[in-house]
Amino acid sequence: MKFNLFPAETYSSRRQQLATAVNKGLILLPGNTESSMNYKDNQYPFRQDSSFLYYAGLDIPGLVLIIDTDNGTTTLFGNELSMDDIIWTGPLPSLQEQAAAVGITSIQPLSQVGSVLSKARDKKQTIHILDPYRGDTAIQLSEWLGVNTPALASFVSEPLIRAIVQQREIKETAEVSELHEANSISADMHVAGMELTREGLYEYEIAARVESIALSGNGRLAYPIILSVNGQTLHNHYHGNKLDSGRMILCDAGAENGKHYAGDLTRTFPVAKRFSVQQKEVYEVVLDSMNHAISLLRPGITFREVHKQAAIWIVAGLKNIGLINGDVNEAVEAGVHTLFFPHGLGHMIGLDVHDMENLGENFVGYTDTMHRSKEFGWKSLRLAKELKQGFVLTIEPGIYFIPELIAKWSSEKKLEEFINYKSLESYLSFGGIRIEDNFLITADGSQKLGKHLAKTVKELEELRG
Amino acid sequence: MKFNLFPAETYSSRRQQLATAVNKGLILLPGNTESSMNYKDNQYPFRQDSSFLYYAGLDIPGLVLIIDTDNGTTTLFGNELSMDDIIWTGPLPSLQEQAAAVGITSIQPLSQVGSVLSKARDKKQTIHILDPYRGDTAIQLSEWLGVNTPALASFVSEPLIRAIVQQREIKETAEVSELHEANSISADMHVAGMELTREGLYEYEIAARVESIALSGNGRLAYPIILSVNGQTLHNHYHGNKLDSGRMILCDAGAENGKHYAGDLTRTFPVAKRFSVQQKEVYEVVLDSMNHAISLLRPGITFREVHKQAAIWIVAGLKNIGLINGDVNEAVEAGVHTLFFPHGLGHMIGLDVHDMENLGENFVGYTDTMHRSKEFGWKSLRLAKELKQGFVLTIEPGIYFIPELIAKWSSEKKLEEFINYKSLESYLSFGGIRIEDNFLITADGSQKLGKHLAKTVKELEELRG
Repeated sequence: MKFNLFPAETYSSRRQQLATAVNKGLILLPGNTESSMNYKDNQYPFRQDSSFLYYAGLDIPGLVLIIDTDNGTTTLFGNELSMDDIIWTGPLPSLQEQAAAVGITSIQPLSQVGSVLSKARDKKQTIHILDPYRGDTAIQLSEWLGVNTPALASFVSEPLIRAIVQQREIKETAEVSELHEANSISADMHVAGMELTREGLYEYEIAARVESIALSGNGRLAYPIILSVNGQTLHNHYHGNKLDSGRMILCDAGAENGKHYAGDLTRTFPVAKRFSVQQKEVYEVVLDSMNHAISLLRPGITFREVHKQAAIWIVAGLKNIGLINGDVNEAVEAGVHTLFFPHGLGHMIGLDVHDMENLGENFVGYTDTMHRSKEFGWKSLRLAKELKQGFVLTIEPGIYFIPELIAKWSSEKKLEEFINYKSLESYLSFGGIRIEDNFLITADGSQKLGKHLAKTVKELEELRG
Repeated sequence: MKFNLFPAETYSSRRQQLATAVNKGLILLPGNTESSMNYKDNQYPFRQDSSFLYYAGLDIPGLVLIIDTDNGTTTLFGNELSMDDIIWTGPLPSLQEQAAAVGITSIQPLSQVGSVLSKARDKKQTIHILDPYRGDTAIQLSEWLGVNTPALASFVSEPLIRAIVQQREIKETAEVSELHEANSISADMHVAGMELTREGLYEYEIAARVESIALSGNGRLAYPIILSVNGQTLHNHYHGNKLDSGRMILCDAGAENGKHYAGDLTRTFPVAKRFSVQQKEVYEVVLDSMNHAISLLRPGITFREVHKQAAIWIVAGLKNIGLINGDVNEAVEAGVHTLFFPHGLGHMIGLDVHDMENLGENFVGYTDTMHRSKEFGWKSLRLAKELKQGFVLTIEPGIYFIPELIAKWSSEKKLEEFINYKSLESYLSFGGIRIEDNFLITADGSQKLGKHLAKTVKELEELRG
């Protein structure tokens, strides 16, 4: 196999910056191990941990990085291959060659991690870890640190989290190139899906085509495909429905490219060649809201404000088509939009599709003075803080008609001074519409990533036609 | 979503049989939970535990089955959906409806598992579990049972393992139908891959096409695709090589069908339209060995004997083409074949591609009186015991030229009275050949599963041409 890495200096310099920010103690970053599917040795495709990728690049299971900020050393722990490994899984560069490729000179066998950590604890060195998101990692950490898995919480380090977020949230130029590529592959996935779609096929047939484009670009899916005529279910991974010409398909799909950067695009299009009048009306409300949100992107604005503006445009549009009454700003203040748009306008994206979500969304999307709301709808806003040049994020407004939620609110007469429940009855089998692209925040605005993908009603109908 | 289940009585009757076999105590079968990829909520495609599927059918994460063999009750534990679940992941049948679909009348909230187990322990009831193969399951079991993860070993139950193996190893008629379907989809995958192959493409482009056929059949891969010009690496999941007309592709790929039964097929074919003379010679040795092994399949023969016979035919064939000298039977006794054929001839297959591997291969493939060898090559034989009517298994002989292994043996002058190391030098970039089909053991022989897939040199050259 060949490495697919940035230059070694990139990783050395990132580690140096991290060590400086954390300042004292020992940073323990375990790479991921293989992930078992239905028995130990039948495994899902290997996905390296993103922070490990960022600081040590190597896309190989079973490695551990320790950065000792007190004495300035960095060590890569791993195992050399046995003959059985070579026979079963093939030759690999030696551990020393792996380390050298990412600018590390000190290596040790994996079996030494526990004793290195034990000596650090004897010396009262602080050990910084991130909260593990896989049970296997938690069990391994608990063995190395000599504590029960619940006690791992005491090692989870806020200084480490803050230092990593501060670095990873500002994308380097080389990272932006990768994100452009991931977006362009993602755009190709959507075009292939739209081209295949016709009445009578099943959702899984379209999803298979969409996924195959990610795979044939030597990548994979950045997240499980959402592809459904029931677009009102926000994360719908069921693909068993037959396509009926009266419905639309909501497809939310993105590629992870060769260096593991994510694209995250959504399009909604009719199974028929053209949108119905009702579909087109709602579609254009979502698109207007999206375009308005994009026009606001620049360093200095808070994303909470961009989200609110998108919500205002959605409410204004729904008022135009007769589903909402009253003052638009008052309606948004009251939360009327959350019936139709119950999620956030977007999130950061990078090595993870929800970038750094494992570090804690409140550290990634909020600040010490801007706290997450507990209100329905607003609580799902993953990113709220002030934007900076170098952020990469998604813009993804949507309008959904969720029968169960409408029934609940209607029975509670919730916000009935704003919501025209009677008119909503003809939308109960409408589904949902979401449109999503990814943007880099530039010095004075934003730049859309990747190649253009049909977005207006006209463009989509041309592609479907 | 729609259920895809056998009739409820199938599951009731399987559970009844299991309870009778285990006889006393409480059987705890946790279904799988979602499996995190790069952060908690970005997940691999859900795969239910196979024993849970066998006894409770439901393909839904977060369920637990407890069979109390002492009082004859079976309870399904799970959570009802919240409105947030409906909005994000969609409506599902209620827990009671789920349970009824698989013949269970008693349900309880998931939060009750711990207290039910605690009461059982107070009453000194034995609690039977299987060894968990996912860290997340281990952590959950340790919480429920109130012990550290290493202490879970004391709950792993040999009576439970033996009872499950005894049931699952004999495939029901309805299961055989599913295995036929999985095999036929798998055959389609191979044909699609062969049709796409041409010089200059990359392995990942072929692998993407192969996988898309599994997906577009509303299934998925039963295991990660092995597709490589370096077929000498037995489980090669690297797909980054460009196809050169002098090489062959070894493709080992199978579908998991809608009910989660696995197919496992391998074909090896030239990147060029025709095999070279050298490729053809070796191919026909593997195919002869395979056909001989198939002719031996019947109840009563041990699979160790079938494996040995396949090895004898491989050695005889390699002697014919000048790579081995001396007496064929003596050569196999001495282990000469393991240089070329270092793995086992096959394994059981069912809901798992290596069926029940998580229960322990020695319980599945061996008996109290037939123990696993520790010798190189022989130690990789997963199945050795006497065949019974109703077993489903793979037959997959191979010949590989592994440069690192040949170099090692050659430098040690290992078995040099048999092995013509000089002649092997012109095979160092040959790769490897494996051919694999799946068979049901019938009353007096065997039946190949699924549709026919090109297997002879002539058939393969016709398909490639």
